Amino acid sequence: MNPNDLQPTTPWHLAERAEAMNPSAIREILKVTERPGILNFAGGLPSPETFPVDAMRDACATVLGKDSAIAKPSLQYASSEGLPELRQWVADEMGKHGATVSPEQVLITTGSQQGLDLIAKVLLDKGCRLLVESPTYLGALQAFTPMQPRIESVASDDEGVLPEALRAQLEDMKEPARFMYLLPNFQNPTGRTMLEARREAVLAVCRERGLPIVEDNPYGELWFDQPPPKPLLARWPEGVIYLGSFSKILAPGLRLGYVIAPPALYSKLLQAKQAADLHTPGFNQRVVVEVIKDGFLDQHVPTIRARYHAQRDAMLAALARELGPTGAEWTRPVGGMFVWVRLPEGLNAQALLPKAVDAGMAFVPGAPFYASEPDARTLRLSFVTSTPAQIDQGMAALGKVVRATLMR
Amino acid sequence: MNPNDLQPTTPWHLAERAEAMNPSAIREILKVTERPGILNFAGGLPSPETFPVDAMRDACATVLGKDSAIAKPSLQYASSEGLPELRQWVADEMGKHGATVSPEQVLITTGSQQGLDLIAKVLLDKGCRLLVESPTYLGALQAFTPMQPRIESVASDDEGVLPEALRAQLEDMKEPARFMYLLPNFQNPTGRTMLEARREAVLAVCRERGLPIVEDNPYGELWFDQPPPKPLLARWPEGVIYLGSFSKILAPGLRLGYVIAPPALYSKLLQAKQAADLHTPGFNQRVVVEVIKDGFLDQHVPTIRARYHAQRDAMLAALARELGPTGAEWTRPVGGMFVWVRLPEGLNAQALLPKAVDAGMAFVPGAPFYASEPDARTLRLSFVTSTPAQIDQGMAALGKVVRATLMR
Repeated sequence: MNPNDLQPTTPWHLAERAEAMNPSAIREILKVTERPGILNFAGGLPSPETFPVDAMRDACATVLGKDSAIAKPSLQYASSEGLPELRQWVADEMGKHGATVSPEQVLITTGSQQGLDLIAKVLLDKGCRLLVESPTYLGALQAFTPMQPRIESVASDDEGVLPEALRAQLEDMKEPARFMYLLPNFQNPTGRTMLEARREAVLAVCRERGLPIVEDNPYGELWFDQPPPKPLLARWPEGVIYLGSFSKILAPGLRLGYVIAPPALYSKLLQAKQAADLHTPGFNQRVVVEVIKDGFLDQHVPTIRARYHAQRDAMLAALARELGPTGAEWTRPVGGMFVWVRLPEGLNAQALLPKAVDAGMAFVPGAPFYASEPDARTLRLSFVTSTPAQIDQGMAALGKVVRATLMR
Repeated sequence: MNPNDLQPTTPWHLAERAEAMNPSAIREILKVTERPGILNFAGGLPSPETFPVDAMRDACATVLGKDSAIAKPSLQYASSEGLPELRQWVADEMGKHGATVSPEQVLITTGSQQGLDLIAKVLLDKGCRLLVESPTYLGALQAFTPMQPRIESVASDDEGVLPEALRAQLEDMKEPARFMYLLPNFQNPTGRTMLEARREAVLAVCRERGLPIVEDNPYGELWFDQPPPKPLLARWPEGVIYLGSFSKILAPGLRLGYVIAPPALYSKLLQAKQAADLHTPGFNQRVVVEVIKDGFLDQHVPTIRARYHAQRDAMLAALARELGPTGAEWTRPVGGMFVWVRLPEGLNAQALLPKAVDAGMAFVPGAPFYASEPDARTLRLSFVTSTPAQIDQGMAALGKVVRATLMR
């Protein structure tokens, strides 16, 4: 414990794990970016234009209607597992993606972030090994870190972890890793996707070495030209815990996600869930069931895809125009929310940020997304919150500060 | 780890702390009690008749209205601290109870159960000492246990922990305890309340020995004849973390609670909150702010008090009639939701339960509420879910099985 954390007169004594919780670098950065007038490409905020306000209003009116039989049940304590209708919907939906899932394997969570927290509690001991992509989702690192695992990055390319690097790393290990955390579709922060052959090659190593996988899929529905390959869960049901979310296809402010777990693990995750918050708000679950029950998402999600597709196109075109001549590199995501940029040699994204903010735009430096050995030249841009015109303007500002910094 | 928990072929390996999570005894019991036709005094479910469905429906319509400026913000990601208006409301409300609280000390949580979980993460190490009342709230034990503290009960009477027993226990301790968990108002499970002199006497020991307190107050507003003495937080601001909830004054299905923490601890709890679920659903927070903003609770809460008061009276009268001659004892709560019964010598509440269910009523055996040395004669009855007529009928059934068992 850092003795400076608490004043000497305080009666409180922090847990050792609290020391592993540090003020989120990204959180501090985001505060800077919230200055009025700044074009913000830093956050991972879905476009509010995609939020189904009318459908939500109608659903609330139905659930709480004067003759509604579910008004009072929606406001009462509910089961920790989640609403049966919603668990059934998730199981059916996974079936469409090639995975055989029973509703009894579905645990409704308060956002998929809570799924990561429950997994950390149930599977991670102090000092145990845990594998992640390089870079990986910062929120997962925040959920895992308090349980004090030793987090190791696996060398990754533009499709995620490299199977041969993974194999070599597993052979080096004196003890097995508890699991590997993967985000196969339109990854946060890089936007990259594991294609069919990569999925099979990584799974072959995992199966062979008995390394289970936590598969996080918040963005899978946000594909542009074609759906991503089928989930890892569909390929290795007993070796994969799967996380899904309603945040990107309906609205994040509902905090609705889910975990799909092999039966052997489900009861422990459920016990952790019960201790964590008893259950996810039943009202939110009832309202979402009401919104989605008649195929609403079949109409709604394509409108989100089309919007983000156009915004991605605008960003890639603007990046080519503004950063193309500078030697910078960036990903070409086929779905999701993010582009990952690597600045020209000699530049540092963290150092560039204040200049970019002065020029009117904000991004997130890439370093906090690395569990080890950060690449200080990287940064993350979200293309979902801004219009194509704002994207043009923001990338022009970024291009200007990059070129100005290079010329010094 | 229990090797039977997972099949030998599974690639998963549980964390040591998962072993401390056991299927909740009470959860298994509650399943038995959910048989149709059983008068259920087992659960701690607020009466659905108190849920403000009309006000909730209106608030949802306002928040999501066609011209609402907060419709989309209510569905977007939000700050981990909680909605400023709600934090301000909590701070103002605490002022009315004699505690000087800044909104910056208020962390909105997904039910107050989440507050217990965050406190456990931030303050408990494996093997550290932790003090609780005897008996204490089962959900708190479930939140604390996964962090593997050594939980010690402090001898308690019908006003909670005994100051002299606490003093002696602290002197015996080789190491200080991290905190003491207290539920001073209408405690779950006993219904007991710490009166003014007891609060001061316990606090004197805590202050003298530097033992901080976690004060849990979900039931404080549910008083019958007069409000309880002012909270411990008002008496020792730097030594108390306070937990509150909207579950009993509005509706539990919203999952809205809060933690009030000394500034030195707030940032760690906030970091734990962010990792746990990013933030509590913003939609729920906006709707509740809309419901309560014009003094709604000043009209609403008295109706809940009157209802539960009448139901408590019915239960105490029925208990006197049915159990009075048997030698059983029970508490006389002046607020809250629960009566705690101690059966006559020779009876065991767990053994009695199946007979009670066969006779048409259910209670919760008291044993799971003890951190150590359970009193097998105790049981908990909730008087809030049933009407006075149902209470009469249920207590008659309980009296019948108690008398029948005594006669054997």
